[in-house]
Amino acid sequence: MQIILLSGGEGKRLFPLSNSVRSKQFLRVLGAPGGGRESMLQRVTRQIGRLLPGSSVTIATGAAQREMILGQLGGGVRIVAEPERRDTFPAIALAAMYLSLELGCPRGETVVVMPCDQYADDGYFRTVERMCRAVEDNAAELVLMGIRPTYASTKFGYVVPKDGAPGREVCAVERFTEKPGLQRARELMEQGALWNGGVFAFRLGYMTDIAERYVRAESFDKVRARYGEFPKISFDYEVAEKAASVAVVPFSGEWKDLGTWNTLTEQLPERIEGRAIMDDESLGTHILNELDIPVVCLGVRDLVVAAGSDGILVCDRSASERIKDFAGAVADPQPRFEERLWGTVRVLDRVPAEGGGETVTRRLTVRAGAELSCRTAVRRVWTVAAGCGTLAAEGSVRTLSAAETISLEPHRTYRLDAISEMTLLEIETPMPGGGGTRTERV
Amino acid sequence: MQIILLSGGEGKRLFPLSNSVRSKQFLRVLGAPGGGRESMLQRVTRQIGRLLPGSSVTIATGAAQREMILGQLGGGVRIVAEPERRDTFPAIALAAMYLSLELGCPRGETVVVMPCDQYADDGYFRTVERMCRAVEDNAAELVLMGIRPTYASTKFGYVVPKDGAPGREVCAVERFTEKPGLQRARELMEQGALWNGGVFAFRLGYMTDIAERYVRAESFDKVRARYGEFPKISFDYEVAEKAASVAVVPFSGEWKDLGTWNTLTEQLPERIEGRAIMDDESLGTHILNELDIPVVCLGVRDLVVAAGSDGILVCDRSASERIKDFAGAVADPQPRFEERLWGTVRVLDRVPAEGGGETVTRRLTVRAGAELSCRTAVRRVWTVAAGCGTLAAEGSVRTLSAAETISLEPHRTYRLDAISEMTLLEIETPMPGGGGTRTERV
Repeated sequence: MQIILLSGGEGKRLFPLSNSVRSKQFLRVLGAPGGGRESMLQRVTRQIGRLLPGSSVTIATGAAQREMILGQLGGGVRIVAEPERRDTFPAIALAAMYLSLELGCPRGETVVVMPCDQYADDGYFRTVERMCRAVEDNAAELVLMGIRPTYASTKFGYVVPKDGAPGREVCAVERFTEKPGLQRARELMEQGALWNGGVFAFRLGYMTDIAERYVRAESFDKVRARYGEFPKISFDYEVAEKAASVAVVPFSGEWKDLGTWNTLTEQLPERIEGRAIMDDESLGTHILNELDIPVVCLGVRDLVVAAGSDGILVCDRSASERIKDFAGAVADPQPRFEERLWGTVRVLDRVPAEGGGETVTRRLTVRAGAELSCRTAVRRVWTVAAGCGTLAAEGSVRTLSAAETISLEPHRTYRLDAISEMTLLEIETPMPGGGGTRTERV
Repeated sequence: MQIILLSGGEGKRLFPLSNSVRSKQFLRVLGAPGGGRESMLQRVTRQIGRLLPGSSVTIATGAAQREMILGQLGGGVRIVAEPERRDTFPAIALAAMYLSLELGCPRGETVVVMPCDQYADDGYFRTVERMCRAVEDNAAELVLMGIRPTYASTKFGYVVPKDGAPGREVCAVERFTEKPGLQRARELMEQGALWNGGVFAFRLGYMTDIAERYVRAESFDKVRARYGEFPKISFDYEVAEKAASVAVVPFSGEWKDLGTWNTLTEQLPERIEGRAIMDDESLGTHILNELDIPVVCLGVRDLVVAAGSDGILVCDRSASERIKDFAGAVADPQPRFEERLWGTVRVLDRVPAEGGGETVTRRLTVRAGAELSCRTAVRRVWTVAAGCGTLAAEGSVRTLSAAETISLEPHRTYRLDAISEMTLLEIETPMPGGGGTRTERV
């Protein structure tokens, strides 16, 4: 079984801890089995490994999230990165073409597409197994998971099974409906309709045939190069609603879309994460603080307080649906925190320069054994705050250890190999007029 | 008339914007006549200049606040700094000895002592004038201001005039009472008692006689050197309660102790200061943000949200009395923001070093024309983000302009003269074992 995990998202609804690079599935806030913290992406891949042991995972994502994924899951994971952001249909089509053309998977192999940012119990993965069996039994050309509604939600699309058929393991689908109004949602729930959770199963050939209506090429690289020829359309519209036969496999267990602070904080193991204090009069409140400075909450009710490099949020739980619009209006376009393959980058300060550009101060954390390469058009000065490593420039190698300061010249390539975990302070200065740089002593 | 302005305070109640160096009277949050912002200290000295034109101001403070005061009021102000923190009696005694021994003021000159952290209207200063006339008329050896209570407060001490005497301009004082319980406060208010606002007037000789019971010397420097011989006691206990004759001059205008966020925010000209956004559903809330990253408040009620280099506060208005205890428990002992004579210092980051000490990253803003001298036992690297100046080291002088990086070696003295306003990024590294330092290029 091939699993295509979809990793996307703009990262605005969980401002300020998520941003355009670190969207919600990357936040390490859920309790992990060992007692630490894990992200939704780490949780879902851990669950797949345990509950679907014969499966093989490919992550369909955008280029911006590539390093984040590698940093969280390690180098062994397979990633198909869209050359540009389009929609779910092109992303799934590209991943299917990868399975076919690059991995040589047969047309008859079962493929499951699932989002990586949902919080579900083990039964969810057993339902995925049942979906695969339904595909193998040729129950329909497209099989999807129908989540048994727990309330009349207006936030999800619904799947209406034929004849209501509530008890059966696999039911034919009569039709899909878009997000309904509240009254319509109640009627749908009474009729036995299920939420469309975005989990789909099909044979690989079914999907590559649809993909090839838009792009047909003899190699994956050529398909990828023509990615812009796929229409910007969702999988639901392009595939699910046009399918000749669709079946649904119901699932009734724990399933949550942790897309807002209100729903996400319900899953947090502690009321406080990070450096913070709350008095006994504060009720129903969560604090998540990624900054080094303390957060103090006194006498507050039903709030989510989140502080990170990109901003500070103070939000009533009931208002957390509205964050997206406000965060978009106020946040910097350039995120201030990023996880990379080699470690993390945090912007500490930005000062605009008179001649254009800006002076940026960053704290870099480089994992022991990791390698960081850089070459820029601007000058950077590194000061080592902790750890040691070797720095190679064109033709020369030297060690770099705590309290040392070094100037990286523009247009040269440097490679840092961290021996122990390193903390570097980087100051990047713009180059007005492209003139020379100096590092001098008095 | 000589005015002694008392400037003290621990700066915990207005966490995180105030700290042990920048206590509440220095926060530039009040609306200034020109449309900008001014601090309580700037406001009170502006009011004195306008309403008490014949007076001469001396500020009694601790050594830690000296630069802050000079930075806010300019070089022309007279400061008497305690060599160590004691209490209000020693601080006032020292300032009185300064007036006598250093300035040569006569024994008969009228002295007014007033706090610098209170928010009052013009009538307050006209009351000070009346207090001076009462001293000149020998109404009593000590004359104090009695503030007409607007509610039965348990936070202030009370002054009980003889015979209630509500209408008279100057009344004899029968007794003082400490902060009462609520029931007692109601009774005191009914009896015509007044709040003790900490404003006192007397003839200079009256105070120097009391001071000389503890320290008698022929020069101010010698008095100051023996400052530890003054008892640690408040002016109320040592002087007011022992005085043979005390008179009170009532004041009925606007007077506020802006000592908590709840009271201070009532005087703010805007609901939002700094980079922040609030939705229309947020009511009764103030945001004060000194950080560069945005604050977003959604759906909140009756909160004070304050963010600065020392931390983040989210506090229900009614809980703002409790901040002191929590801030003390969580804040760093070393403040992260300071105003200096030459500009401001903001700590951006701290990384503990393996061999002890820490690497500290700071942003320094140096005013145009200002001079900054430094000599430390650690190494500092400066990068100029904006502006230019000249840097003099022992025997050499050079210019320093944007995008330049320079290493300041330990145990050498440097002097920076800013030609235009400069922004510097400073990285201070500890010196394990006192070894040498390097600044190299690869």
